[in-house]
Amino acid sequence: MWCVGIDLGGTFTKAVLVDRAGNAGEVFGLPTPTDGDPAGVVEGMAEAANRVVEARGLSHRDVVGVGVGSPGPISISRGIIYAMPNIPFMSNVPLRDMVGKKLDLPVVLENDANAAAYGEYLCGAGEEARDLVMLTLGTGVGSGIIIDGKILHGSHELGGELGHMILVPGGEPCGCGQRGCLERYCSAHYVAAGATRRIREAPPPTALRAILDAKGSIDAKDIHEARKAGDKLAAEIWDKAVYYLALGCVNVCRILDPDRIVLTGGMTRAGEDLFAPLRDHFFRLHWSLTKPKTEVSLASLGSDAGSIGAAGVAWQTFGN
Amino acid sequence: MWCVGIDLGGTFTKAVLVDRAGNAGEVFGLPTPTDGDPAGVVEGMAEAANRVVEARGLSHRDVVGVGVGSPGPISISRGIIYAMPNIPFMSNVPLRDMVGKKLDLPVVLENDANAAAYGEYLCGAGEEARDLVMLTLGTGVGSGIIIDGKILHGSHELGGELGHMILVPGGEPCGCGQRGCLERYCSAHYVAAGATRRIREAPPPTALRAILDAKGSIDAKDIHEARKAGDKLAAEIWDKAVYYLALGCVNVCRILDPDRIVLTGGMTRAGEDLFAPLRDHFFRLHWSLTKPKTEVSLASLGSDAGSIGAAGVAWQTFGN
Repeated sequence: MWCVGIDLGGTFTKAVLVDRAGNAGEVFGLPTPTDGDPAGVVEGMAEAANRVVEARGLSHRDVVGVGVGSPGPISISRGIIYAMPNIPFMSNVPLRDMVGKKLDLPVVLENDANAAAYGEYLCGAGEEARDLVMLTLGTGVGSGIIIDGKILHGSHELGGELGHMILVPGGEPCGCGQRGCLERYCSAHYVAAGATRRIREAPPPTALRAILDAKGSIDAKDIHEARKAGDKLAAEIWDKAVYYLALGCVNVCRILDPDRIVLTGGMTRAGEDLFAPLRDHFFRLHWSLTKPKTEVSLASLGSDAGSIGAAGVAWQTFGN
Repeated sequence: MWCVGIDLGGTFTKAVLVDRAGNAGEVFGLPTPTDGDPAGVVEGMAEAANRVVEARGLSHRDVVGVGVGSPGPISISRGIIYAMPNIPFMSNVPLRDMVGKKLDLPVVLENDANAAAYGEYLCGAGEEARDLVMLTLGTGVGSGIIIDGKILHGSHELGGELGHMILVPGGEPCGCGQRGCLERYCSAHYVAAGATRRIREAPPPTALRAILDAKGSIDAKDIHEARKAGDKLAAEIWDKAVYYLALGCVNVCRILDPDRIVLTGGMTRAGEDLFAPLRDHFFRLHWSLTKPKTEVSLASLGSDAGSIGAAGVAWQTFGN
């Protein structure tokens, strides 16, 4: 028997088959139909699901249930997606029931960052971990918390938002209405935005200035590359982001003490240029009462974590 | 049937009987024998336990198990207390097995702050809560986290240390080796220490100066009372502590999203003089994406939370 995991993204919809032991089978992806209506989006999700089932010569009778990982805000208990970045018509959509009706299968909805963390926990970088925290360094900082093998949702389905942990009292204003949130200091988007401001405001002699002038914008990758080439401002900006990321990881240890913190998202493509200074800061900022026991490492499933984890959530929900 | 909970403190040892439904029976306390050896401390714990059993006309056959709440650092899995504030000879003591042998009953060890949180969860301010966080504003800031009715220990028994969440990057040095920990800004001890420094360094016109000169020291209660009497410096110091406490509560909401955050410890005796400004700061610092749903309130069991919670841990461990 199988569960289907669907990862609904703003640009891409992906489905995967996962068996009870956590082995992933076929994967199928297609662009999310962003120019129609909710029914069109559900149609795309159903098509992706059907493709992976048929690719293995199976029918719906071989499928125990479907897990859907979706960007937030959502209500898991009510199965509703309240809003979706980039797709204005996906507002207050009863996604769980629509997909369930379309596929005639039981469906469970889950936050995409939680699903991705659960995917890594089940069959990625979480091997032999009981408690795992995942941070996605993308436009914002997404996160999912696994405690004792279960996703931490919180009492009001609002938990696990590590990107909005306040790290700098009275710090930079964040889109969430708070100031000084972690994601304001180390998401790819804000790192680039902060650099752009610094270059524009008081141009230091930096290679980034030429890139900014030529492209009209810079991104985290430009900063990483300029740093590698020895650019001083790029090094400073990169190091500051990594410092705050390490602070966030230390707080995760104090509060949750997981086996592992796994990182994913664009900025992790920098590899050891991210992880080496991150571990340095982490060790330095960590308390001296015990040695650091939580491992900070790279996630291993890449962009498949969300769909695989969604299938895992379906197994946990419908598998007994 | 009953479980016995023992709260081992640096100055006082207390035992309580608790039935399966969470009803507390007899309580007995005695000064912790601090001038002998570990066997003497265990003797005191056994005496307290025996007293509450006998007070109800019961024998050890009516007791399912014993829970011991102890100050840290401890190893729950190994049943060892590594060190105890104020009692130097309580170092690397196999407390669980010593108490078990003495009473001839199964014993489980738990961190005292976790036990207290569990006590409030079971039969105190945690009524109808599934997830609860407790903060004790004492010499330091102790804390316990209950998720889904279970104590969060973390993968290495190091979780739930909210007092050492870093709130101010590069801030005040903390005894733990980190800088800017929550407890450096809002424990009773550090609030008083910070005030003393300010009064001594550049004496502003404050009533606290006279108190400091007369007593040689000031405490959080002096600050609270001077604030009530309109002292400006006292108000400033109090408000700063409450601000950081509110920041910590906001972070707890972002990460754990509990039903309730309950506060206890000396500073909570200030009542609404603590809670009113705390809620103001909390609402102001909270993100705007949702209204605050987590309730911040006073713990209800006072100094009995630890022993009652320890009995609850015994029920959870031995009750099935």
